[in-house]
Amino acid sequence: MKNLLELYGTVLDLQAALALLEFDQQTAMPSGAETGRSAQMAALSGVIHREMTSGKLRRALEKCEKAPYPEDSFEKAVCRQLRRKLDRAAQIPGKLVKNLTMATASAHSAWLKARESADYSILAPELERIIALKQQYAALFSGFECAYDALLDEYEPGMSSAEVERIFAPLAAEQTQIVREAAQIPAEPLPGGSYSKAAQLAISSKVAKAMGYDFKHGRIDLTEHPFTTNIGLQDVRITTAVHRDLPVSCLLSTVHECGHALYEQGIAPQYHRTVLGDGVSYAFHESQSRLWENLVGRSRAFWEWLYPEYQKRFKQLASVPAEQFFRAVNRVQFSEIRTEADEATYNLHILVRFELEKELFSGKLAPRELRDAWNGKMEKFLGITPRNDRYGVLQDIHWPLGDFGYFPTYALGNLIASQIWEAAETLMPELEQNIGAGNFKPLREFLREKVHRHGARYTREQLLKQICGAESISARPFLNYLRKKYTVA
Amino acid sequence: MKNLLELYGTVLDLQAALALLEFDQQTAMPSGAETGRSAQMAALSGVIHREMTSGKLRRALEKCEKAPYPEDSFEKAVCRQLRRKLDRAAQIPGKLVKNLTMATASAHSAWLKARESADYSILAPELERIIALKQQYAALFSGFECAYDALLDEYEPGMSSAEVERIFAPLAAEQTQIVREAAQIPAEPLPGGSYSKAAQLAISSKVAKAMGYDFKHGRIDLTEHPFTTNIGLQDVRITTAVHRDLPVSCLLSTVHECGHALYEQGIAPQYHRTVLGDGVSYAFHESQSRLWENLVGRSRAFWEWLYPEYQKRFKQLASVPAEQFFRAVNRVQFSEIRTEADEATYNLHILVRFELEKELFSGKLAPRELRDAWNGKMEKFLGITPRNDRYGVLQDIHWPLGDFGYFPTYALGNLIASQIWEAAETLMPELEQNIGAGNFKPLREFLREKVHRHGARYTREQLLKQICGAESISARPFLNYLRKKYTVA
Repeated sequence: MKNLLELYGTVLDLQAALALLEFDQQTAMPSGAETGRSAQMAALSGVIHREMTSGKLRRALEKCEKAPYPEDSFEKAVCRQLRRKLDRAAQIPGKLVKNLTMATASAHSAWLKARESADYSILAPELERIIALKQQYAALFSGFECAYDALLDEYEPGMSSAEVERIFAPLAAEQTQIVREAAQIPAEPLPGGSYSKAAQLAISSKVAKAMGYDFKHGRIDLTEHPFTTNIGLQDVRITTAVHRDLPVSCLLSTVHECGHALYEQGIAPQYHRTVLGDGVSYAFHESQSRLWENLVGRSRAFWEWLYPEYQKRFKQLASVPAEQFFRAVNRVQFSEIRTEADEATYNLHILVRFELEKELFSGKLAPRELRDAWNGKMEKFLGITPRNDRYGVLQDIHWPLGDFGYFPTYALGNLIASQIWEAAETLMPELEQNIGAGNFKPLREFLREKVHRHGARYTREQLLKQICGAESISARPFLNYLRKKYTVA
Repeated sequence: MKNLLELYGTVLDLQAALALLEFDQQTAMPSGAETGRSAQMAALSGVIHREMTSGKLRRALEKCEKAPYPEDSFEKAVCRQLRRKLDRAAQIPGKLVKNLTMATASAHSAWLKARESADYSILAPELERIIALKQQYAALFSGFECAYDALLDEYEPGMSSAEVERIFAPLAAEQTQIVREAAQIPAEPLPGGSYSKAAQLAISSKVAKAMGYDFKHGRIDLTEHPFTTNIGLQDVRITTAVHRDLPVSCLLSTVHECGHALYEQGIAPQYHRTVLGDGVSYAFHESQSRLWENLVGRSRAFWEWLYPEYQKRFKQLASVPAEQFFRAVNRVQFSEIRTEADEATYNLHILVRFELEKELFSGKLAPRELRDAWNGKMEKFLGITPRNDRYGVLQDIHWPLGDFGYFPTYALGNLIASQIWEAAETLMPELEQNIGAGNFKPLREFLREKVHRHGARYTREQLLKQICGAESISARPFLNYLRKKYTVA
C-alpha cells in the first residue's frame, strides 16, 4: 500500500502543477503567453496520462486489491477509487484525447465568435464534431444504459439519467408554482452607481474569514469567472469577481467558492496526497457551495449580521432599509441567464439543459437544431424566449468544452444542500441565531464533521445516510425550503 | 531534427511548469503550503530528469549529430548545446541529486537559524556536507584541471578558474585605488522617511516600459529578493522589492531585472522552445542586467531624465538639488554587504568569494575555518572586518544552496557590460543624449541586434568578437569606465 500511495501521490503532485498552470492562466498570465501555456499544459497532461496508465501503478494497485484489507478500511476505499480512475484512464485512446482536445479548443474560439454575433450557427458544426467524439468516448465504457449515462457517471459516480429524472420529477411543476407566487413579492432595485472595489473585497475577505476559510492554506484572487482550485490540499485557492454596480454579486460569489474551499480545506490530513483527498462527487461539492451561498448567504439572519457593515461601507445604502435590501437580494423572477438566476428558478435552467443533453445523445435531437430546441425548452420550463442566442443557447461554456453531463450536478447540489441543511437545523436549534450573530463556527464544524473530513472515503449514498438518514438525493427538503421562504402560505 | 526539437520542446514545457511552481512559491503561495510545494517540485524535477536521460531523446540527438548539417548551422548549434546538457544530466546519479537536494534543504534552514544568531558555526557542518557532495559531483566530469573548474563550467561554459584569475588580475589593485579616490567625493545622504509604495511601483513600471519591457509577455510582481524568470519565452516575469526608505533600490532592482528580461524577451522567435532559447552564459546574462542597472541607471543622463519625475512623486526630494541626489545614488565606500555594494566596490566582494571557493575545493581551506578566512579576505580586499557573521560569511544564500562557481559570473558580467557599452558608445555617439531624453530604443535595439536575438546560438567568445572585436572578457573597459566616472583625473 505504501508503494501504491507513493506512486499515486506523485501523480497528484503533477496534477497540482497542472492546476497551477491553469490557475495562473486565469489570474496572472500575460496575454501573449496563450500558445506557450497550451503547450505546457498539454505536455504535463501527457505525462500525467502516462503515469496514470503505467504498468507500475496498475501492478501496485492489483497487489493491494488482493490484500485482505477489511471491506470498510481506508485501504479498500483507496483501491476502489483508484480502480475507477485507472480503468477510465486506461480505456481512453490517446488519439481520442487528442482529437477532443483539438475539437474543444476550436469550439471554444467558435463559441467566442458565435457569442459576439449572437449566432448559434457559427458554433453548430463544432458542437456536432464534439458530440460525435463524446459518443465515441461514451462507447468505450460498458455497463451503462445509454451513452449519456456514461458521461454523467464521470461527474456523478453511479448516477444514471433515469435516477436523475426520478429525483428531478417534482421540480418542474412545484418550482414553477413557487416562482409564480414569489414573483409577486414587491422588490425595488438597489441604488445604482459605483460600489467601491476595495470595500467589496474587504467585506468578501471578512466573510471568508468568518466562515473559517484558512488563509494560511489559501488565498483570494480576482478573475472574470470565479472558481475554486487546489494546488494540493495545503493550498486551496478561490477567486472572485468585482462588479462595481453589484456588490452582492462579489460577496455571494466569494461565499459560494468559499463553500467549495471549506470542503477541501476540511479534508482530513491523512487523506491528503491520496485518491481520497477529494470531494465525493460534483453534486456533493456543489452542495457545499450552494449551502453557503443560498441557505446562509441569502438568509435573513445572515443579512441581519452583515447589513450594518454594508451600510457603513457603502454610502449608497445608508438610507435603504434592511427589509428592502433583503428583498432585493432575494428577488425572484423568470430570467434568461442561468448564472444570474435566483435560487427559486435556478433548477429550471438545469432542467432545460438536462433534457437537451439527453436528446442530443439519444440521437433524438441534431446539434444543428439545438437553438430551436433550446428556445422551446425555455418556453416550456420558464415561460420565456431568450432575446437572442447570446442570452440563450450560447450562454454557457460547458458544451463547447465537451462537458456534457455536468449540468445536472448543479441542481443535485442544490437538493443535497437542503437535505444537509434540514439535518443541521434539527441538530442545532440555535443555527439561525448563530448566523445572525456572525458565528459560523457551529455550522462549519458540523459540515466538517459530517462531510468535509471524509473526503472521498464514502459514497454519496453512504454519506447522505450518515448525515440525514436518507436513502438517496431527494427534492423534498429543497422544495420545502423554497416554499417556506417564498410563499406566504 | 523535427523529432528532436519536439522531444526537447516537451522537456522545456515541463521546465516552464517547474519555473511557475518556483515563481508562485516566491510571490503568491500561502505559507502553509511549503511541504506540499516541495513534493510537487521534486515530482516534476524527477519527471524532467527522466525525460532528459531517456533513450528516445538520446537517440534522436545521435541521429542529428550524424546528419551533414553545416558547422555554423542552427541544427549544429542545437546539437552542441543539447549534447552538453544531456551528458551532464546522464552523468549525475539520481542518488547524488537526492542527497544534494536534502542537504541543501537542511542547510537552508540552518542558514536561516545561523543568520538569526549571527553564528556561522551553526551552518559549518551543513556546508561541510554540501561541499563533500559537490566534490563528488565535480568528480563525475572529466577534462577539468580541478574540481572547482567543473563547477564553474556549469554556469560559464568553457571557462576555467585560471582564465578567471587572468581576467580578474587587474581588479584588486586598480579598483581599490579608484574606490579610495571616489570615497573622497562628498555625498550627503538623501532625506529619510517613507517614500510612497505606489509611487515607487508606478515609476518602476514607467521605466520598465520606457526600456522596452513587453508587458504583453511579462508582468512585475513583488518579492523579498527580486529575480527574473520565464514560464516559457512568451512569459518573462520580473519581481521587485519596495523599501519605504530607499526608493532608488526598488527602481534599480527593477532596471536590473528588466535588463535580464529584455535579453529573454529579445530572443528570436525561431529559438523559442529550443535549447537555443536561452542566454549564452550566466555572465552574459548578468552583463545585460548590469549594463542597464549601472551604465544606464546610475548615469547622469538617466537621472537628468528621471529626476524631475522623482521630485514630483516624492515630496521629500522637492528641495534636494539634482547634483546632490546624483552623488547620493553614486556614493562609493567600502562596505560589508555585497548586494548593497556600489558599482565601484562590487567586484571586490566577488574576489573574496572566488578565492574562498577555490580554496574550499582545493582542500586548502576547511569549511569550519571559513568564517576566519572570510574575515581575512574582507580585510585583504576591502580593508574592513564585518561586524558579525550575518554581515559577513552568512550574508549570501548561494553556498547553503550548493551554488559554488556562481559568484564569479557576477563580476564577469560587470566586465562584459562595459565591453558592450564601449562598442555601443562608439557606434552611437548620441547614446548619452538619448538616455537623457528617456529614449532607450536605440540602445535596446543595439542590444537586441547584437546580443538578445541570438539566444544561445553562439559561444561567449564568438559573441564578444562580433560585438566589440575582443578575443575574450577583459577588465580594461570596466576599469576605464570607473576611472572616468569616479576620479577627478
